[in-house]
Amino acid sequence: LTDTDALIIGAGPVGLYQAFQLGLLGLRVHLVDALPHVGGQCAELYPDKPLYDIPGLAVCTGQELVAALALQLRPFAPTLHLGQLVQRVARQPDHRWQVSTNQGQSIVARVVVIAAGIGAFVPRALKVEGADTLVGKQLFYQLDSLATYAGQHVVVVGGDELALSWVMRLAGQPPEHRPRHISLLHRRAVLTAPADLLRQFDALCQAGRTSLVVGQPTRLTPATGTQAGSLEIAAPEGSPGALAADAVLAATGLSPQLGPLAGWGLALERKQLVVDPATCATDQPGVFAVGDINTYPGKKKLIVCGFHESVMAAYAAAAIVHPDVAQPLLYTTTSTLLHQRLGVAH
Amino acid sequence: LTDTDALIIGAGPVGLYQAFQLGLLGLRVHLVDALPHVGGQCAELYPDKPLYDIPGLAVCTGQELVAALALQLRPFAPTLHLGQLVQRVARQPDHRWQVSTNQGQSIVARVVVIAAGIGAFVPRALKVEGADTLVGKQLFYQLDSLATYAGQHVVVVGGDELALSWVMRLAGQPPEHRPRHISLLHRRAVLTAPADLLRQFDALCQAGRTSLVVGQPTRLTPATGTQAGSLEIAAPEGSPGALAADAVLAATGLSPQLGPLAGWGLALERKQLVVDPATCATDQPGVFAVGDINTYPGKKKLIVCGFHESVMAAYAAAAIVHPDVAQPLLYTTTSTLLHQRLGVAH
Repeated sequence: LTDTDALIIGAGPVGLYQAFQLGLLGLRVHLVDALPHVGGQCAELYPDKPLYDIPGLAVCTGQELVAALALQLRPFAPTLHLGQLVQRVARQPDHRWQVSTNQGQSIVARVVVIAAGIGAFVPRALKVEGADTLVGKQLFYQLDSLATYAGQHVVVVGGDELALSWVMRLAGQPPEHRPRHISLLHRRAVLTAPADLLRQFDALCQAGRTSLVVGQPTRLTPATGTQAGSLEIAAPEGSPGALAADAVLAATGLSPQLGPLAGWGLALERKQLVVDPATCATDQPGVFAVGDINTYPGKKKLIVCGFHESVMAAYAAAAIVHPDVAQPLLYTTTSTLLHQRLGVAH
Repeated sequence: LTDTDALIIGAGPVGLYQAFQLGLLGLRVHLVDALPHVGGQCAELYPDKPLYDIPGLAVCTGQELVAALALQLRPFAPTLHLGQLVQRVARQPDHRWQVSTNQGQSIVARVVVIAAGIGAFVPRALKVEGADTLVGKQLFYQLDSLATYAGQHVVVVGGDELALSWVMRLAGQPPEHRPRHISLLHRRAVLTAPADLLRQFDALCQAGRTSLVVGQPTRLTPATGTQAGSLEIAAPEGSPGALAADAVLAATGLSPQLGPLAGWGLALERKQLVVDPATCATDQPGVFAVGDINTYPGKKKLIVCGFHESVMAAYAAAAIVHPDVAQPLLYTTTSTLLHQRLGVAH
């Protein structure tokens, strides 16, 4: 069990700047994000696209903005919990909040700031009949214990680098741990991956150890005592109507999901958290929301607005963490205290 | 008479970003500032001091921030009216606003955004008895028509580069246009100016054409039929108690003044303009206020907050200028319209 002043859910640009603002006010900060890296939408949806409206940055890519914010945050070195999905936010009798993740991490914080953007980036669900009840049994969204698939008919769904890397990792197992056969199922014949990976995959196909199947999966049927599991597909003429599938590995990409958040018991309005714009406080004491996830009169979903909201939330959060300490507005140009916290000497 | 969509009063960092946001929304923009250059407080009070809290800029000086914002604004090339003090803001019968400056400039705008910070940077008043009624007659805050001072006893008050440059310009006039004598009055013997200027001044003093007087001015007496004007001074022992002064030129620096704004008829609360945080609208229709000059619940006087306020004001202003055109939130990463306005091709 970890204890901290403030926990930020979401390490996108606004979450990172929120951590900076809380750091300026002297608070200890932890950050949780579902992605294995910081940056949120900027890193996931437009890492190479130019942004033109960040004040003072005439042009920068999403990834450049993330790098700049991470650099700025460095003096405060918040603790990062990446690749973890928050599953539960619960108030303790002492009014602190306990936040639990799907990796078994549990953090107790005086305040929680939700900077979850358009949601946690989680694997996009494979939309086939029968899938819901088979997740974790016959349908998987990540490749963990490779030996599990020894001797099985495995179908990897997807056509990008991740899907191909899974195929290669499975095929690269020692013979006794290898799947019996690996099919790569993709909606079209063109795969999007580095040339060397495509060449390796092609060689495996030539050797008959893998095959590329073009089509859309429609239904997943579990194995029975007498029959192997199978994945039915809608495919162009001449292709098989079903693939033997003891295991389906879906590499169908990440998409933002608000799902988990809906279960935390906060007031949502059209999938947004309603906040007081003066503080960015939600209806739960000690819980704040900043960035694209929040709403208030006039709300604009722009990064520059989230930056300002982080300031409002930081001061309100500091007042909760240190109720007896006044938080006068300090300026980084002149404040010796802020210079000490930033680690800059003058 | 100039006509425009939006007029911004104040070309500090927030005024510049306000112009950028209005430009993104397709509005024609004019900017007025009392200073002869853009940048406001950043340029005037801390051009060389580092700021650490501008999002994505781990460290930058005030002047660097101004340069970055001016670069970002370049695609929209707003019309600048620098070195002009707004004296009057008046609503016309057609609901547009007429803004008049002390340079005789008159601009009619559909909306006005006040980004006046802590006020217009205007010359600091010389605090001596009798000064008020003699401004423009015997007391001057700028050096304009040099020939006016021919044959006069001139006292320049100040000890910095500007004060010394005035002395040199007056002394450098042809003999027939030169003052009879030039005194430099400063509160202490140490002058703050480049070495070459100090050397030139010293040479003039040696030649008896100028003199340095150390002391504080206390009272300005106008000339009468029989007696020359004089400036009384409180000075260390042995110094004169008064200087002959047909003209006093005060180079006493700039200080921010809210004075003029108080006369525009807007609702002020502790010298702040009260705005609706959803729009940054003041109590006057079509007049907005952003940055340090405004107030609303939770207001923090930080540049990053002013940036956000500029966004809110921009959308509300666009709705007034183009009431029949919806203003959906567009993103600079993806919007072709914004790319056209920014002049970037993809």
